[in-house]
Amino acid sequence: MRSVGKSRAAAPDSEGTALVSPWPARKTTRRNRDIKREAVVRAAARAFNARGYHNTSIDEIAAALNVSKPTIYYYVANKEQLLLECILAGLERVLEPFRRPREAGVTARGHLNEMMRHYAEAIASEYGWCMVRAEDLGLAPSSLLHIKRLKSEIDQGIRRLLEEGVRDGSIRTEDLKMTSFALAGALNWIAHWYRENQSMTPREIADAFIRIFNLGLAPRPAAKPSGRAPARKEPIT
Amino acid sequence: MRSVGKSRAAAPDSEGTALVSPWPARKTTRRNRDIKREAVVRAAARAFNARGYHNTSIDEIAAALNVSKPTIYYYVANKEQLLLECILAGLERVLEPFRRPREAGVTARGHLNEMMRHYAEAIASEYGWCMVRAEDLGLAPSSLLHIKRLKSEIDQGIRRLLEEGVRDGSIRTEDLKMTSFALAGALNWIAHWYRENQSMTPREIADAFIRIFNLGLAPRPAAKPSGRAPARKEPIT
Repeated sequence: MRSVGKSRAAAPDSEGTALVSPWPARKTTRRNRDIKREAVVRAAARAFNARGYHNTSIDEIAAALNVSKPTIYYYVANKEQLLLECILAGLERVLEPFRRPREAGVTARGHLNEMMRHYAEAIASEYGWCMVRAEDLGLAPSSLLHIKRLKSEIDQGIRRLLEEGVRDGSIRTEDLKMTSFALAGALNWIAHWYRENQSMTPREIADAFIRIFNLGLAPRPAAKPSGRAPARKEPIT
Repeated sequence: MRSVGKSRAAAPDSEGTALVSPWPARKTTRRNRDIKREAVVRAAARAFNARGYHNTSIDEIAAALNVSKPTIYYYVANKEQLLLECILAGLERVLEPFRRPREAGVTARGHLNEMMRHYAEAIASEYGWCMVRAEDLGLAPSSLLHIKRLKSEIDQGIRRLLEEGVRDGSIRTEDLKMTSFALAGALNWIAHWYRENQSMTPREIADAFIRIFNLGLAPRPAAKPSGRAPARKEPIT
């Protein structure tokens, strides 16, 4: 540093002097903007849950946040974009476990269980309502295509985990597609019966589902003294 | 018979003569009416599937049946009643196995499997679309209450079967409510992915789901020579 005593609010100079701007740092602005944008999307999701998408106006969302309508339009172009953002926020949460590498020592079934917990949390959140109604709310074809791609990514992610589980011995299944559909169906349907005042947390629901799907409803036969492995394919009646 | 040669279309007399009326028998009329009414409800269901409930007019349903609009109004009062009838037709089909006594020698799990086949057939039928959207289509509170009662009857029926299965040894489950919700969720979601051109029949889907739910995804351990029964509660990770 060659000089001291300069105004600390002066324009940046080439001398490396630490300047303090009365405006927040760009990073802080971006973070604040993200926080506010998320609050807008979350408020929209809650309003859609309460009154339905078509019966909700931008005015009501603004009122819930105690801001003006133009403030909402600063973050999103229109109500349809808000709906899309709600759906994407939920789907991205489900996808998160598929997008990171599996931890060392965790079987495919362990990873699948973790995915089910994320899925249950997303679908029981305020985003669940619109996630399961995505196809029925009149979104533009390009938005529907985007959603369809993410849903397909989830389905493919589940099937891949099932396949890996069959290979590493942690999962038994004969039908990857039907198993993926049964899992996703049970999880998606949570959005239809779960309300915030439910007695169980999303984590508890996920753990109950994990237990049901892993152990199955057929009693496991007691081990036989002969040591012969039981037949893998049980007749269905 | 005391007389012959009388007009066979004469008014009924007290002599036991078999009369043939040019009008169809009341029973036949009732049956024809039921068949036509069902065709109207089915056509409505298909139109709702194709274009959505709010975008479908009574005119379009009439056109699909090649009849006039007043013909439709002869069977139902309005479009809302048509929607309600579609939903009820589906729900009644699911409920059917709960309303008849179980056949001798069939376990509760056998009965539950049978119920799942009915459920899959109902939800993959043209009624499935509106069955899973019942709450979102703006039905009158009295209609919603009717639907809610039938859905609750289905849920209670599943839980009762699970309970009976635990007693007769054909089912293992620790959580009747979550098991009922997982089963119904997987089955309901069929309406979102099934299309008539799917490669599997509803029966095949039901059987795949029965297998998944009965056997579970965790490999069953090979029987141990010690003859000790395996622990019933497996840790979930």
